[in-house]
Amino acid sequence: MSENPLHVIMNAKSVAFFGASNNPLTMGTHQITHLINESFEGTVWPIHPKEKTVLGVKAYNSVADLPETPELAVIVVPTHIVTEILDQCGQKGIKRAVIISGGFKERGEEGEKLEIKLKEVARKHQIRFVGPNCIGVINAHRKFNLTVYPYLTGPGPMGVLSHSGTYVTQVIPYLAKRGIRYSKAVSLGNEADIDLVDALEYLGQDPETKAIALYIESIRRGREFVETARQVSLKKPIVAYYVGGTEAGARSGSSHTGAMGGNDIIHDFAFRQCGIIRAPTVERLYDWAWALATTPTPKGRRVGIISHSGGPLTSMADACARNDIEVPLFTPETQNKLASFVPKTGSTANPVDFTYSTNINDMLNTVPNIVFEAEEVDAILIHGIGGFGLIKDMGQDALGILPMDFSKLESEMAKMHHGIIALQKEKSYPVITASFTDHTDAAVNYLLKNDVPFYSTPERAVLAMSAVMRYAEWKRNQIKISQGSGSDQ
Amino acid sequence: MSENPLHVIMNAKSVAFFGASNNPLTMGTHQITHLINESFEGTVWPIHPKEKTVLGVKAYNSVADLPETPELAVIVVPTHIVTEILDQCGQKGIKRAVIISGGFKERGEEGEKLEIKLKEVARKHQIRFVGPNCIGVINAHRKFNLTVYPYLTGPGPMGVLSHSGTYVTQVIPYLAKRGIRYSKAVSLGNEADIDLVDALEYLGQDPETKAIALYIESIRRGREFVETARQVSLKKPIVAYYVGGTEAGARSGSSHTGAMGGNDIIHDFAFRQCGIIRAPTVERLYDWAWALATTPTPKGRRVGIISHSGGPLTSMADACARNDIEVPLFTPETQNKLASFVPKTGSTANPVDFTYSTNINDMLNTVPNIVFEAEEVDAILIHGIGGFGLIKDMGQDALGILPMDFSKLESEMAKMHHGIIALQKEKSYPVITASFTDHTDAAVNYLLKNDVPFYSTPERAVLAMSAVMRYAEWKRNQIKISQGSGSDQ
Repeated sequence: MSENPLHVIMNAKSVAFFGASNNPLTMGTHQITHLINESFEGTVWPIHPKEKTVLGVKAYNSVADLPETPELAVIVVPTHIVTEILDQCGQKGIKRAVIISGGFKERGEEGEKLEIKLKEVARKHQIRFVGPNCIGVINAHRKFNLTVYPYLTGPGPMGVLSHSGTYVTQVIPYLAKRGIRYSKAVSLGNEADIDLVDALEYLGQDPETKAIALYIESIRRGREFVETARQVSLKKPIVAYYVGGTEAGARSGSSHTGAMGGNDIIHDFAFRQCGIIRAPTVERLYDWAWALATTPTPKGRRVGIISHSGGPLTSMADACARNDIEVPLFTPETQNKLASFVPKTGSTANPVDFTYSTNINDMLNTVPNIVFEAEEVDAILIHGIGGFGLIKDMGQDALGILPMDFSKLESEMAKMHHGIIALQKEKSYPVITASFTDHTDAAVNYLLKNDVPFYSTPERAVLAMSAVMRYAEWKRNQIKISQGSGSDQ
Repeated sequence: MSENPLHVIMNAKSVAFFGASNNPLTMGTHQITHLINESFEGTVWPIHPKEKTVLGVKAYNSVADLPETPELAVIVVPTHIVTEILDQCGQKGIKRAVIISGGFKERGEEGEKLEIKLKEVARKHQIRFVGPNCIGVINAHRKFNLTVYPYLTGPGPMGVLSHSGTYVTQVIPYLAKRGIRYSKAVSLGNEADIDLVDALEYLGQDPETKAIALYIESIRRGREFVETARQVSLKKPIVAYYVGGTEAGARSGSSHTGAMGGNDIIHDFAFRQCGIIRAPTVERLYDWAWALATTPTPKGRRVGIISHSGGPLTSMADACARNDIEVPLFTPETQNKLASFVPKTGSTANPVDFTYSTNINDMLNTVPNIVFEAEEVDAILIHGIGGFGLIKDMGQDALGILPMDFSKLESEMAKMHHGIIALQKEKSYPVITASFTDHTDAAVNYLLKNDVPFYSTPERAVLAMSAVMRYAEWKRNQIKISQGSGSDQ
């Protein structure tokens, strides 16, 4: 197999950057700051017709002046000079580019002509490129970030390929607060050269990517996409959010990256064939891809539910029933074991209801371990993570009247959540968690940092579990089919 | 009409509180702190068999010792003494109670017997009460909060009635971060006396409640519920999240508040009949009830979409198409007017795409006003609120290398969002907003404080708009029917 063209782009050791200046309001300047300031270990050469330095880094007036041939060119210049710049890059011997600039195919006939020219120049010099009309790429493992937002949350197991730059870069703070971290992310733009299929193949091979999130406005090479996706799905899960299937979505997407969307039902069918889990919204795309990237594979569709709150327990049970997840009653033996730890006003039946209990260790450690050992369910859902927020809030409200010492409680409470991490990491048992708090709670933050999926509502945790279970089932069926036992289905 | 029994409970001027102590780990102590510390203007009398003071407030050993008859008793004591305490309250002449204590009907046969006794005692003294097995009530306009979490976000237009205490109190910090504020909230518990129908009638009459969110595990008085809900719906919107319709949900809910859930389809039909908007999750319940409580009524189902991000625009357009919201092309006249403000690389068609523009005033003020005046759509969706977060993040990342002054920018940016508030408040034009940032962004916070609905993803904004439009349409149809013009439909 020939090397994927994204390999050098993602691992470029030297970058010629066109379009950054000392003007803090331009996109190129925003983008280069990360290469300069986020400890990227490669070399960055700003190319600027006039400036001697760009943000303190020595600038060159022309790519021809560079002391060496860079591995990558990043181009954020006005549309009408993009082709010329790419030609200069080719003359210097550069073989890879990320073209951020817009104004091509997405702008109608005239733009399309420009894009054809651009492709001709690339072909002449054998340059493989991402874009144009994209927001760049991120390789979180190398602190290599060409996009607009800073990426400071460290590497993670989720890869992203997107027809929207927003869903790669503008979402970074949103994802950071939810503990979601990229392995690699590619804003595909107009796909004049490197496209969704190339990029999917690349992330499929990437050992640092455990699951792949796709935002799709249109698929240009249908057959190749299905073949590639099917191969990749057998190795790692793919979640796709497709918006080209409605007239309004297609119209908007068309002006956006210059392609007409296909038919919704056909895409839905194709996704199922490839084992792709389809997400209905961008929130679910990240929710599910993150769960699939981090959660051990469940053996079946039975779940145990644990909480100290009746409403969320009921919401979880209801959402399970609506999403084909079983919530079986625990056997009398298991219920007996649980009874020593669950308050009498609660329930051991499954859902396990701790009612208003403050014994975090029992709820997050002892009881989940009993459920794991009983082997009556394939995974656990827990609502009620954290809670230090409550204590702190009450401490503030009751300041001076509640005789409590809050100083050490926060880290103590975080540690009490370690049982969940141990179940996931040491026993490969799937646990997905939720509560109404967020990353500002020390315990939630502790789980997020340890790749335990956490969601801010009970139903989102169930839906994520459902995605994990659906993929596991698809994969089991593929193995059955390949072994012949599924041939009569 | 006789006065609703909740009226005195919600407006109690004096409260006898049973079950609070100086032990910071008990529920009763948590609950009384808010009455003492959140500037509630009524009188609180802790009743405790031994303590001389509770959290600094003079305590009485018995309700009989109180200098006056309190308007309300709040009871958070062990199950076996609840009835006795209620009897003592009756002897003192107290006519209203909130019974927090659990251990009744939800605990099976034995608990059911206790609950019957409790009701007998209440009847004997003509006491009307909320509970048992609830988390209390909140009247945000009076800083009257009997629940576990502090409520510090001030009053708002959304009322809540819930069979789960969690969905009244544990969600308070979650809602606060989303700008969602209660008018009044009631945790219904086992509904041994005051029930969903009573409480719905009460919020229906309450002038401070503009929309009502219901979390329902089961409906005990079906016919009365439908009649009351229909009457209330004609005055203000109701959103319901019902979880008793699946076997697992019913089982969990049953152990939770002691009732068996009914059939999902029947409930769905009943909700439609009454004009109730049904929410599929607790997140949507608050999302939609908040939008309905704050958004002016749209005249139809056409929407204009505005953003500087192609992905969210496409997501919004796609989600509109899937939820029966039209995204009509703007006329050439309107597009001409828009063209002066929209970058050439963008689009004026609808969705209006600003691409990577930093002109906040054009996107949030000038263009929305042109769209409003064109009268070609009935409401506006905007993605891309805030953004100071980006500038701040970049400022941090580029500290020392970007020559910018961030000091005044934050409040300036917040002010630029004022055009949206003016459209909603001065021109009664519905605008629902979104972006991937949150309340920590000054501009988002400014909108939240001014009751402009804001959501953290593009699709959630569309779904909220859909709820607003569905209710408006239902109400229009009711008016048509009552005027006879709908009789042949």
